[in-house]
Formats: sequence, C-alpha cells, structure tokens
Amino acid sequence: MEQKLTQLKGILAEVSDLQGAASLLSWDQQTYMPPGGAHGRGHQLSTLESLAHLKFTSVEVGKLLDDLEPYAEQLDPDSDDACLIKVTRRQYEKRTRVPAELVAEFAQATTLAHEAWTQARAENDFARFQPHLEKIFGLRRRYADLFAPYDHVYDPLLDDYEPGMKTADVKAIFAALRPQQVALVKAIADRPEIDASFLHQDYADAGQWGFGVEVITRFGYDWKRGRQDKSPHPFTQHFGIDDVRITTRVLPDFLNPALFGTLHEAGHAMYNQGVDHALDRTLIDHGASLAVHESQSRLWENLVGRSLPFWRYFYPRLQGYFPEQLGNVDLEDFYRGINCVKPSLIRVEADEATYNMHVMLRLEIEIGLIEGSLPVKDLPEIWNARMQEFLGITPPNDAQGVLQDIHWSMGLIGYFSTYSLGNLISVQLWERLLADIPDLTDQVSHGEFTALLGWLREKIHRHGAKFEPQDLVQRVTGSKIDPAPYMRYLMKKYGEIYSL
Amino acid sequence: MEQKLTQLKGILAEVSDLQGAASLLSWDQQTYMPPGGAHGRGHQLSTLESLAHLKFTSVEVGKLLDDLEPYAEQLDPDSDDACLIKVTRRQYEKRTRVPAELVAEFAQATTLAHEAWTQARAENDFARFQPHLEKIFGLRRRYADLFAPYDHVYDPLLDDYEPGMKTADVKAIFAALRPQQVALVKAIADRPEIDASFLHQDYADAGQWGFGVEVITRFGYDWKRGRQDKSPHPFTQHFGIDDVRITTRVLPDFLNPALFGTLHEAGHAMYNQGVDHALDRTLIDHGASLAVHESQSRLWENLVGRSLPFWRYFYPRLQGYFPEQLGNVDLEDFYRGINCVKPSLIRVEADEATYNMHVMLRLEIEIGLIEGSLPVKDLPEIWNARMQEFLGITPPNDAQGVLQDIHWSMGLIGYFSTYSLGNLISVQLWERLLADIPDLTDQVSHGEFTALLGWLREKIHRHGAKFEPQDLVQRVTGSKIDPAPYMRYLMKKYGEIYSL
Repeated sequence: MEQKLTQLKGILAEVSDLQGAASLLSWDQQTYMPPGGAHGRGHQLSTLESLAHLKFTSVEVGKLLDDLEPYAEQLDPDSDDACLIKVTRRQYEKRTRVPAELVAEFAQATTLAHEAWTQARAENDFARFQPHLEKIFGLRRRYADLFAPYDHVYDPLLDDYEPGMKTADVKAIFAALRPQQVALVKAIADRPEIDASFLHQDYADAGQWGFGVEVITRFGYDWKRGRQDKSPHPFTQHFGIDDVRITTRVLPDFLNPALFGTLHEAGHAMYNQGVDHALDRTLIDHGASLAVHESQSRLWENLVGRSLPFWRYFYPRLQGYFPEQLGNVDLEDFYRGINCVKPSLIRVEADEATYNMHVMLRLEIEIGLIEGSLPVKDLPEIWNARMQEFLGITPPNDAQGVLQDIHWSMGLIGYFSTYSLGNLISVQLWERLLADIPDLTDQVSHGEFTALLGWLREKIHRHGAKFEPQDLVQRVTGSKIDPAPYMRYLMKKYGEIYSL
Repeated sequence: MEQKLTQLKGILAEVSDLQGAASLLSWDQQTYMPPGGAHGRGHQLSTLESLAHLKFTSVEVGKLLDDLEPYAEQLDPDSDDACLIKVTRRQYEKRTRVPAELVAEFAQATTLAHEAWTQARAENDFARFQPHLEKIFGLRRRYADLFAPYDHVYDPLLDDYEPGMKTADVKAIFAALRPQQVALVKAIADRPEIDASFLHQDYADAGQWGFGVEVITRFGYDWKRGRQDKSPHPFTQHFGIDDVRITTRVLPDFLNPALFGTLHEAGHAMYNQGVDHALDRTLIDHGASLAVHESQSRLWENLVGRSLPFWRYFYPRLQGYFPEQLGNVDLEDFYRGINCVKPSLIRVEADEATYNMHVMLRLEIEIGLIEGSLPVKDLPEIWNARMQEFLGITPPNDAQGVLQDIHWSMGLIGYFSTYSLGNLISVQLWERLLADIPDLTDQVSHGEFTALLGWLREKIHRHGAKFEPQDLVQRVTGSKIDPAPYMRYLMKKYGEIYSL
C-alpha cells in the first residue's frame, strides 16, 4: 500500500512540476516577456496544461486511488496522507467527468470572448460581447450538468473555487449581510465627506516601493523565497512553497494602489510560503480555497494595514519617505483619509464598506444567467438598476458598469463571491486572534507581527489545501463562515470614523 | 504521407514547447529566481526534460520517421521538410541509442561532480575533483561506445555539438593553426606593451548599459522579440524564434566585460531571431551547431566590435557616456587598447590572438582522457607544461589553471573546440562578406549594419539547423572550415597594431 501511495505521489509530483512551470511561464508573461513572445507562450502554456491534465486524469491515477481507498480509511483522517488521498480523489472525479471536447470548446470560446470583451470595453459596446457571454454561460451550464444531480445548477461552478460550498450557503450569508451593508452605506452618506485629497499628489516611485518593501519585510514575507516585481495588474504566483512571488503597480499620483496592493499580495504570498513542506509537490501545497486565500490578503491589507494601531507605528516612517506630501497631514486625518467611504463604480477601487455590494450584484446576475431566468441582453439594465439600489449611483456607460471585470470573459463563473467570503473570514479570524493574543493590537502598534504570522501559520497556512474551507474556518473559529463578525467590525470602525 | 508529416510535426511542436518552457525556467534561475526556489526548480527542470525526452524517443516517432523515409527521398533535399525529416531521424537514432540507466547515472555523476568542482576550485584542491572527473570521462567513454564503430572514440562526443564533424577534421585544422598562432604570440611578446590601463577606471553602470543597448539596437537586435537582463555569467536563451533574450554582466571598474559581452550575446541572439518562421516549433528552429553560433557572436564582437571602422563611428558616442574617463584617450589609442595582446591564464578573458591556444590545450587533454592515454591525476602537470609551451606563462595554482572552467564538471566533453571553430568560421564569412558587399567597411564606419545583418540572415540565420555545419560553411564560403582566413586576419590586424 505504501508503495502505491509513493507511486501516486510520484505522479502528483510530476503534475505539480508541470503546473509550477506553467505558473512561471504565466508570471513571465505578465512581467518581463517581450511582446513577440506571446504567440509561442500560448503554445507552451497549452502544451504544459494539457500534459498535466492527461497525467492527472490517467487511468493509472484512478486505479491507484481505488486501491488506496481502504488504506486511507485506516489512517487518521486529519493526517497528510488521508487528506491527500481524499482531496485527490475529489479532484480526480471532478476532472475526469469533463469530456475533452467540452474542455476544448470552452478554451476556444473563452479565447474569443476575451478578445471580444477587450474590444467591447474599449468601445463601450455591450452588444459585441453579448453573444460570447451567452455562449460561455451555455457552456458552463453544460459543465454544471455533468455533475447532476445538484441542489442548484450554480453549485458545481462555485465548488471549483470553494470546495464543498453550496449556493444556498452563499445566498444565506449574503441575505443576512445585504440589509446591514445598505443601511451602513446610507448612514455614512448622510455624514460630511472626509478629505482624502492628500492621497492624490506626486508620490515618487522609489518611495512608494521602498515603504511597501519595508512594511512587508516586517510582516514576515520571506524574500529568500520570493521577490517583488511590477506588472499592470498586481498578482501573487507560486512555483512551489519556496518560491512565491508578488507584483505591484505604482501610480505616480495616487498612494493607495501600490501601498495597499503590496500588503494585499504579501498576505496571499505569506499563506503560500507557510504551507508545510511535507505537502511540497502534492497538489495540496497551496491555499484551501479562493475565499480562504482572500481572507489572508484582506487580513493584512485591511485588519492590519488600514488600522490605527498599524499607522501609529508606520505613519512616521511613511512621512519620512514623503515629508513634503504628508508632513502637514496628521495621523488621525491620514487614518480617516485612507478609510473614507464613497460609493463608486469600480469594484477593485471600492472601500471596505461598499466592496461587498459590488460582489452581491455580480452573484445575483451570475445565478440568474446560469439558471436561465435572466437574459444576457438585459444585463446592462439590471446592472445599472442594482447599482442605484445598492450604492445610489448609476454608471455613465457599460465600460464602467457591466463590462468592467475580466472574469466572465475568461469563463470564471462562481469566482466573485469568494472575494466577499474572504472579507468575512478575515474578521472571524481576527476576533479569534484577539482572543488568543490579547495584546495583539499593542504588538501591531509597535510593528510586531511575529505572533500574528505565527498564529496564521499554525492555524491556517501549514494545512495547505488539506481541509475544505468551511471545515477549516469551523476548526479555527468554532463556526462556519458567518457575516456577523464582519458587520460588527464595520459598524465599530465606521461608527468611530463617521461618528454614527 | 502529408498527414504523417503533420503528425510528426505535432509531436515535435510539443517537444519544442517543453524545451522552450525548460529554457525559461533556466533563464529565470540565472536572473531572477530567489535562492529558495533552487530545489523545486531542479525538480521542474528534470520533469520537463524527461517528458521531452520520452516524447521525442517514443516508438511513435520512430514509426513515423520510417514511414516518411520514401516520401522524404522524393522531396527537394534542401526543402524544409526533407531537412526536418533527415535531422530528426539523426537525432532520434542518437537519442534512442542511449539506455535510460546511463542517462540517469550521468545526470547523477555530473550533479555530484559540479558540487565537487565548485569546492575544489574554491579550495584550489584538484585531488577533490579528480575521482569525479575520472567517473565522468568513464561514463562519456561508455556513451561514445554506444556509437561504435567510429573513426575515433571522441567522434560521437564532438558530433553532439558539431553534427557530422570528425575528430580528425578538428585535429587537422588545429595542427595547421597552432604553429602560426604560437609564432604570432611570440612576435607580439617581443614588441613594447600597449597601454590599456584606461579600460580599468570607474565606469558607471548606467553608461555601460546604455552604450551597449545603443550599439546592439543599431546592429538590429529586435527588442520586440527579446530583452536584456543582468546575470553573473552572460548568456543567450531562446524560447522560440520570437523571444530570444540576452544577459550581460557589468563590472564597475572594467569596461570590457559588459561592452564586448553585450555585442557577443547580441550576435548569438540575432542568429536565433533570424531563423525562418516556417521552422518554428520544429526542433530545427535554432542554430546549426555551437561553432556556427559562435561564428555569429564572434563576428559581431570582434570583426565588427573590435575593428577601427566600428569605433570611428561609435567612439565619440562612448566618449559622450564617459567624458572624464575617455575624453583624453584618442581613437587610435583606444583601438590599440581594446586589442592589446597579453598571454593570460583565463580563457574567457583571452584576447583574439591567444584565445585559440587555450582551446587547443583543452582539446588535447580531452582527447587524451577519452582515449585513456592520459591519466586524470597528471592533468595539473600537463596543463601547466602546455601553458608554458603555448603562452609562456605558468598558473600559480590549479584554480587559475586546470580547474578554471565549468564544462567538464557538467559533462560537456567535446564542447571547447567549437569556440575556436567559431572564430575561424567568423573570418571565412567576413572575407565572403567583403566580396559580396564591397563597401561593408565604409558602412560599418557609418554605423550602418542593415546590409550586413541582411546577408547573415539570408546566408546563415534563416536556415536554422537544416544543414550540418561543414555543409553550411561550404555552401556560403565555397570551402569547409579553414584556418587560413583567420590567420590572415590576425597577421594583418596585429601586424598593423604591433608594427610586426
């Protein structure tokens, strides 16, 4: 049996190597690749991905998993090997269920849709994107139907990003969240606007970069096992536990993107760097789900990086980098400025109070489209009506409305809600952290993060993808994903900032 | 038949994708990879290489090649398809002849030998490296014996780098070259030394980098299909015809390495960029051999970049970058300085007149070791004796003598002579160029390289690896590799510089 397990691990290691190589190709494509390389890079990525797929879905893997079933049942269910066999079987069954033609058709459709979306957004022409979006949702429905029976047709899509999570769970969470979020945003809108204009000045590239590096070094991002580069869209990419890289984007006249982007990506990267080396090259040597991943990035970006204690320590340092720009802005005003709430059109620029509203809007639309209850052609209208309802604003055009996100054009249906679930989990973890490390706030205000990172390593990171996200959150916090802590956090924070 | 050819090309394309991906992994390893990534990178590279090997040496490829044999005979032998089938069959037969255990044993032996060599060189302790070198030459002899009968046991090794070339050919070429080279070096040694001290001053990084970029841009290096980065050892890496990158190394107090290194690597890179797109992803979409590749890098580095006409145009520009350092050095003195001849210990730092002597020494030793006529333990002694004989100097220690090069520790036996063959070919091409483009020298002195690059593209680059090196040189210059043009060139150039 142990020999069979070794055999299985050998195959998974090769698949992992192919995926790691593909990740590097993709990292390079987004950072350093010259434009001429694009065509060949497409071929290389597709060859690596198809070889990885063939290897993983081979009859041999199926046979090994079958043979190992009784063995796994004798193991401690929390052991690495038991989890590895369980997660691998789950993945194997999902992947082998999909016929090669559907994979190919989907790949082709998303390639064309992505091109169409790029043009449609540039020309503010939803009609151009519409048939592609219809095609993609049609193909995703066929995909979902491969996993029938299901409670909801959206379940198999969501499950790709949040293993084990159901549409009904997410709906219930969002139903509890929505009225409170809407009420909070309305209450804030009645208060005087906060002045955040100081964030929009000339901020030299070197200073923005240098400060970000200083902060994440203190966080504990391990530079021996990572690096930071620039790219148009910030991202984290891992090529194994010991090489986890981040990118950032520096705007010359706005402080937020590089600053909070760097903390955000470092949060993702420290998760990947913290996975137990015993899981190296096993395909479970990464985060448990997108939502759990986002809980880490949001925790460092928001719970730490947008908190007053954090800036008590770091604000004098930031002022040192930018004495002209920030010398006359005091700590309280800076803190209020980086936390000002303002309903806005673009999700990726939204503040903590309004962000989830953007996600809810998308979830509602995705579910309607996949159910077939919502015709694609009505999307712009519905989008704009919901924006008015949730945030009190209406996009002046579709480019800043329904066409703003890349996800649907790439076929990533079921992805958006993970952003909000990550927000919720981050505060559930934070409440637990405050209970376990009573002087955490004090530590943060002294630029001390060792205990914080140690706790996350121990409770979350080291487990990799051994546990399903709801199970992991339950193990660590005592309850499943729950919106209450997040609302408590928002109410307290903005209650103070806006004197509600 | 055409369907079978398409099938074959499909497999070669996948092998090419795997090799391209492996090349990127290796490029990243030498430029940006954090130290922690080394272990995982080793696994990824080995997985990609072994998959590429398995795919290429599959029974399916053998069958397709057999089936295509009669078809290929009907084609124009110079056509892309005929050459592709011929070269692929040659490669296939060579690679399938080697048993997997020997490949594995060799991989393990070179890994250990490389570690031992690194330590041996650092500690100046040849004895530590000796058993590894014995092992490697033993394994290479077993490899060569797989290709028996041969004229000489060294032939199959040389053939890996110079397809079709024989040991006897190289020996004959070097036998003709050696006495003339030795005589030239002796004659120069009797003349007064040239002052080249101005090359050793503080040269700012940005200026060195900027000037190199300016020159190779004028050469015609295509930045849309390439880029330049820094690495400890300069190299060129291609991931397809449309992504060919170079690296350079900038020393703060010595002008030559970045300057001539950049021109050298650009020469390699323009070769790869110039291959006909019809050969893309075929495994013959790269240079014909190491020697032909080196002929391109040496042509741009030396025939162009160390010539007086070149500097007539570029020297005022270089002075513009470094007015303090070079403002008082006139063109003639600069030209003499960058061409000063001085027997030295280290091959990679050798000038044009002494370089080949370093190579001859290595070839003699390699042949002795593979024949078994030379015991490994005697290497330091033989090395030092030959250095005295060829160049009139003796290394003070083995680190600067027999241990200086990385090649043997990596099992690269048969590689060194390609450096000298490349030197010879570069001048054969240059003589032909001067016949075909009578005002070439004048063009160079005006910073005009379009006709030069166009000629190289047409005669050499576009063919990729379709032709064997001797065949290609014969087609372009009318004779096989010939040392006479190179000696004519050296005698004329140094005759003038040293008033011989």
